[in-house]
Amino acid sequence: MGAWHDTTASPEDRVEALVAELTLREKVAQLAGLWVGAGDSGEDVAPYQHDMSSDPPVWDEVIQDGLGQLTRPFGTRPVDPATGARSLAAAQRKIMAANRFGIPAVAHDECLTGFAAYGATIYPTPLAWGATFDPQLVETMARHIGTDMRSAGTHLGLAPVLDVTRDYRWGRTEETIGEDPYLVGTIGTAYVRGLQDGGVHATLKHFAGYSASRAGRNLAPVSMGRHELADVILPPFEMAVVEGGVRTVMNSYAEIDGVPVAADPELLTTLLRDEWGFDGTVVADYFAIAFLRTLHQVAGTDGEAAALALTAGIDVELPTVHTYADALIAEVEEGRLDVSYVDRAVRRVLRQKCDLGLLDPEVKVEPEGPIELDSPANREIAARLAEESIVLVANDGVLPVVPGKKVALVGPRGMDAHAMLGCYTFPMHIAPRYPGTDDGVPIRTLAEALVAQGIDLKTAEGCGVDDDSDDGFEEAITAAAEADVAIVALGDRAGLFGRGTSGEGCDVETLVLPGRQADLLDAVLDTGTPVVVVVLSGRPYALGRFAERTAAIVQAFFPGQEGGPALARVLTGAVNPSGRLPVSLPRSEGAQPGTYLHQPLAGRNKVSSVDPTALFPFGHGTSYTTFDWTDATADRDTMPTDGTVTLQVTVHNTGATDGTEIVQLYLNDPVARVTRPVNRLIGYHRVDIPTGESRTVEFTVHADLTSFADRHGTRIVEPGALNLRLAKSSADLQATLPLTLTGDPRTVNHTRTHRCGSRVVN
Amino acid sequence: MGAWHDTTASPEDRVEALVAELTLREKVAQLAGLWVGAGDSGEDVAPYQHDMSSDPPVWDEVIQDGLGQLTRPFGTRPVDPATGARSLAAAQRKIMAANRFGIPAVAHDECLTGFAAYGATIYPTPLAWGATFDPQLVETMARHIGTDMRSAGTHLGLAPVLDVTRDYRWGRTEETIGEDPYLVGTIGTAYVRGLQDGGVHATLKHFAGYSASRAGRNLAPVSMGRHELADVILPPFEMAVVEGGVRTVMNSYAEIDGVPVAADPELLTTLLRDEWGFDGTVVADYFAIAFLRTLHQVAGTDGEAAALALTAGIDVELPTVHTYADALIAEVEEGRLDVSYVDRAVRRVLRQKCDLGLLDPEVKVEPEGPIELDSPANREIAARLAEESIVLVANDGVLPVVPGKKVALVGPRGMDAHAMLGCYTFPMHIAPRYPGTDDGVPIRTLAEALVAQGIDLKTAEGCGVDDDSDDGFEEAITAAAEADVAIVALGDRAGLFGRGTSGEGCDVETLVLPGRQADLLDAVLDTGTPVVVVVLSGRPYALGRFAERTAAIVQAFFPGQEGGPALARVLTGAVNPSGRLPVSLPRSEGAQPGTYLHQPLAGRNKVSSVDPTALFPFGHGTSYTTFDWTDATADRDTMPTDGTVTLQVTVHNTGATDGTEIVQLYLNDPVARVTRPVNRLIGYHRVDIPTGESRTVEFTVHADLTSFADRHGTRIVEPGALNLRLAKSSADLQATLPLTLTGDPRTVNHTRTHRCGSRVVN
Repeated sequence: MGAWHDTTASPEDRVEALVAELTLREKVAQLAGLWVGAGDSGEDVAPYQHDMSSDPPVWDEVIQDGLGQLTRPFGTRPVDPATGARSLAAAQRKIMAANRFGIPAVAHDECLTGFAAYGATIYPTPLAWGATFDPQLVETMARHIGTDMRSAGTHLGLAPVLDVTRDYRWGRTEETIGEDPYLVGTIGTAYVRGLQDGGVHATLKHFAGYSASRAGRNLAPVSMGRHELADVILPPFEMAVVEGGVRTVMNSYAEIDGVPVAADPELLTTLLRDEWGFDGTVVADYFAIAFLRTLHQVAGTDGEAAALALTAGIDVELPTVHTYADALIAEVEEGRLDVSYVDRAVRRVLRQKCDLGLLDPEVKVEPEGPIELDSPANREIAARLAEESIVLVANDGVLPVVPGKKVALVGPRGMDAHAMLGCYTFPMHIAPRYPGTDDGVPIRTLAEALVAQGIDLKTAEGCGVDDDSDDGFEEAITAAAEADVAIVALGDRAGLFGRGTSGEGCDVETLVLPGRQADLLDAVLDTGTPVVVVVLSGRPYALGRFAERTAAIVQAFFPGQEGGPALARVLTGAVNPSGRLPVSLPRSEGAQPGTYLHQPLAGRNKVSSVDPTALFPFGHGTSYTTFDWTDATADRDTMPTDGTVTLQVTVHNTGATDGTEIVQLYLNDPVARVTRPVNRLIGYHRVDIPTGESRTVEFTVHADLTSFADRHGTRIVEPGALNLRLAKSSADLQATLPLTLTGDPRTVNHTRTHRCGSRVVN
Repeated sequence: MGAWHDTTASPEDRVEALVAELTLREKVAQLAGLWVGAGDSGEDVAPYQHDMSSDPPVWDEVIQDGLGQLTRPFGTRPVDPATGARSLAAAQRKIMAANRFGIPAVAHDECLTGFAAYGATIYPTPLAWGATFDPQLVETMARHIGTDMRSAGTHLGLAPVLDVTRDYRWGRTEETIGEDPYLVGTIGTAYVRGLQDGGVHATLKHFAGYSASRAGRNLAPVSMGRHELADVILPPFEMAVVEGGVRTVMNSYAEIDGVPVAADPELLTTLLRDEWGFDGTVVADYFAIAFLRTLHQVAGTDGEAAALALTAGIDVELPTVHTYADALIAEVEEGRLDVSYVDRAVRRVLRQKCDLGLLDPEVKVEPEGPIELDSPANREIAARLAEESIVLVANDGVLPVVPGKKVALVGPRGMDAHAMLGCYTFPMHIAPRYPGTDDGVPIRTLAEALVAQGIDLKTAEGCGVDDDSDDGFEEAITAAAEADVAIVALGDRAGLFGRGTSGEGCDVETLVLPGRQADLLDAVLDTGTPVVVVVLSGRPYALGRFAERTAAIVQAFFPGQEGGPALARVLTGAVNPSGRLPVSLPRSEGAQPGTYLHQPLAGRNKVSSVDPTALFPFGHGTSYTTFDWTDATADRDTMPTDGTVTLQVTVHNTGATDGTEIVQLYLNDPVARVTRPVNRLIGYHRVDIPTGESRTVEFTVHADLTSFADRHGTRIVEPGALNLRLAKSSADLQATLPLTLTGDPRTVNHTRTHRCGSRVVN
């Protein structure tokens, strides 16, 4: 038994004891992953799914010195969870047997919308989490995800995505939590806490800047300076590191202002570790190290790429061994790279393994109990999240639809269960490679769910999501014309790399609804039947030309396996909608990039003919009841630059049904040393209010919350006049409370910023 | 007589002598402009044309302490040039009489496409200059402009625009010279030399970053870091300062990464003056100082705005006195601003006046000779520039059109003389405010010019430029169907702030042709008659869906008053076209921003469904003859990082007509410390070659030309492998010559970079 096995020793001592024993090859083996698939039979691993080299290494050869990580054992092919877990355990046994120290690999998998394994619950997409403004429920969901993953032998989950949406054309918009850093940070940090509570280390993606790629094209370069990076892109990551205690960070593929993040020590080391105090592992986004040579072209050889990434601060090469390990060893052996960089990364990797129990004597890799990845408890959480995420954008009274009405459900998203699913779900991500594979979990279509709610339904697709045909228009028009109400279900089909209209690699040029869907909507509107537009999508689409003619608009962002019933309950009034837009709904198809979080000049101005204002702004959402806000007060209107102010507002449910309001707090900084957003979210509170009752919501705002990044990226609190705005959305301001900060400017330590406190006081 | 009158003393001594005498009010008076109009009667000044304050100051009151500048005496209303000059002289006499020292104002006017005065020659727009790749001719044009302006009493011209196009949606794209910094820099510097040789100080606009506004919306914030700014945006300005010796720079309205340029000492002082050695005046873009308070919101009061701008490095507030002077004086008197900043600016302003002869005793402000602003010599230059700027983009042999063919000219740009004019011309910019005003110069339509070339023409508009009606389609379709060839003339109507489809404030959301023009083109193509598409525009439009079906495509960028005949001569073969695209022609309407100058990942990549590649790339253009390139050689393939390499290539005119080739030299840097463009222009040579003959073109490339900005914006020459590419366009590479730089990296002083030498050797 080695000293590293001594569970009574400190983790540091255990790690040091092990590092001292490892050869260079053994060290480097800990810094790489291997992509295997959990075999159907449970006996062995599947062949490579992806490989960048033409000559994939032999499995036995690769693991002879140990192995850092096993890549996506469950996320590679459809396999019964119990079988998969046995297969993973067998692989781990093989890895443990092959290396001198008996150390297993860290097994990682995707978990963006739940464990991306066959048969695991599919929760709503992150954009839907954003719409709930409910971090507590997201944390609960993540805890269930973590528990389930750990039960199957997985240690590390590749979520959450903390990219702040900057351009709706980007296919991965659905994977983000929205366009506001505070919302992304609070919800994302809740996810981290939940997942890690469940026993699985979380991974922040993609650190940093990925969402701001040119024209929203995946992997395209990012034009951005230090101020914007620090002000908009970095805060969610900081929050998840400092408050969430996340254990793993994944680099972004982005190159920001000419520097690929995978080769940037200023981000990966100076900021992340030295300033924020992160002490976990940094893993490469898949193939990112090789991309330094092949795509970004800042390295001439694989060795240069490896050395650049390692010295910048990437600890683990994912997803799989190709030329990295040999190239890295050569760099060290030939004197071009100091071995201390290898040691630095190995210490981090072994510390993570130590904390996961993987350095303990007699590590158990076999599943310890029954594996149930789609429990009733999971489904209930998925259903609640879905319900809370659906946004009633507009309603002239046509909703809710009640039994007795003749309803036509038309459009390509009404009769397809996959309309509920985002790109990183098993059915949309992995199953397409295995024709004939079922979804693994039960998913109801909107049509089925409406019928289950007792609705008299006639259905007609009208057109496909993205084909060119209008052959089905006639049938859809007839169905709509004969109905009392037409529900037109439009939107996206999630997929990978061009297989879908939303998802990784499915970027668009403009925000026009895919295929012929806009034309179908026009045609249905022309019937004169009141139209409820239901958009099931991964990004917001331009609805400006339809808004005046529709009776209601409902926006859902891939609400997951329980999404169909949730949507039906909202449409029929069984659930009072409470979602709020985590991204603005644009008026027209161009004028991107642009989000609600903008300086005055980025809005409508007098010297441009283009109007970029949203059709419906960030934070907007309505209800079947009505809310009046009164008595907005602050306990002070002046305070020092390190002071705290307390705000209250009373919200009355003045309608006939119980409902939920999202009280939002925005900051307006009318004069600052750098240009500031017109409004930015600094707090929010979700509050349930029975009909006829009132609730008083209180916010506690420390001056740190007014801080911003100066031109060099340093966060400061400036004295001067501010406006605190209690609001129903970023554009529907209910009350503005002026506040003057006095005293000297303060530099705010990144690791000590305060969160906005909020609660219901009576 | 004051010591400052002593013309035998040094300018420095004269300026110091004057500064010592000036009161604070007199100093500040030199730092502001006044916007007057040259009166029709010649006796007095016109009332304010623009004013930001509600209470415009009285003219006599304003000038009692002197006056820095007179704003647009000719560019405010239509007036006979001789009358205007007398009026300006009268105003100057009034100013000289009003101040203790008898100093006149600097009179400035616009001169983007020639002197923007009624009756002055209207040259092609800058984007057309870019298409000529002919700096010599642009310099000649600018010399004529300068001579004409000075003859009328004008001292300062507000051109050239050195913004590098980054997003075609921007309405001011027509005012730029194109999307490549080297092309913009070389042509722009030629303009500066010419204008200043003519006796008028040039003004670089807009320093810096204006063209990269978000989504191409005018004045919207710029997301950009130091590397990109230094690598792409700044080089033309540097070239015009260091090589061109420009005397005035105008700030950009832009805010770059949260910092308004008007308040940025790093750009306006550290870079411009300390590094580049600029010693002229920096003038505010109109109202830019007030905008610091009202639009950018980085100043709380007018005084703060004034102090921010002045300390950053703006010397003169334009266009007119409102609250600036009083606010600035109060800042000084109340101790918030050191008077040394005022003195610094005053010294620069007085030095400029000294150099212009305005501090001499008995300054003559009356015109000295006859004023002829549209001479035959001017018109000939305008015609040659127009001819050289027209790009034959594609041609299946339908062109040239010869007499005898039945030609239909359809589309909204064929029968309108204003189709030839950019936004900053008198007819499009100023005349619309005075209904009934004629153009001041003769301008022929394309239809008139084709008839003059003996073409049998039938015309039909088809539709307006930007209206919604298709009432004229039928007539156009009939005309096209009955013709042998249909010339479809489409494009923009230039105008200001939403009055046009191109020009300042006329931004667009997508690159679809305005109004119903794309539909008209579709309808004409459907007739089956061979179609020549002629685009007369201020920006490139998406032609991807038409390209395969057209017989020829001709692109012209507002070719000026001689543009109609020039275009007709190109279409009929009287002139062999030689223009090359200064901006790419996009395939489809979205996917902006993006230009040819992009890193590998900004091009087509495997992980985005969007294809951003151009339909026709930067530098592309064809001819009625053919050219073969042979014998591309370099005199070395290795050199030190301060070495020089000489390249040669021989171009043969293998067709039946005399022609002109543009030999282009691009650099590819396969590995660098920051990501590099796939190809970037570092040299070009325009060469006339008679049919059957050959010319050998030689380029001399110093290693400085391979330099690039690192992540901090410092320019470096890196050792390593490079590829020098002799090319017909940025995508049509004829020969690649490898070159290895050896030795240590060098930091290149911004003021000592080398230009590419080029010549015809035989």
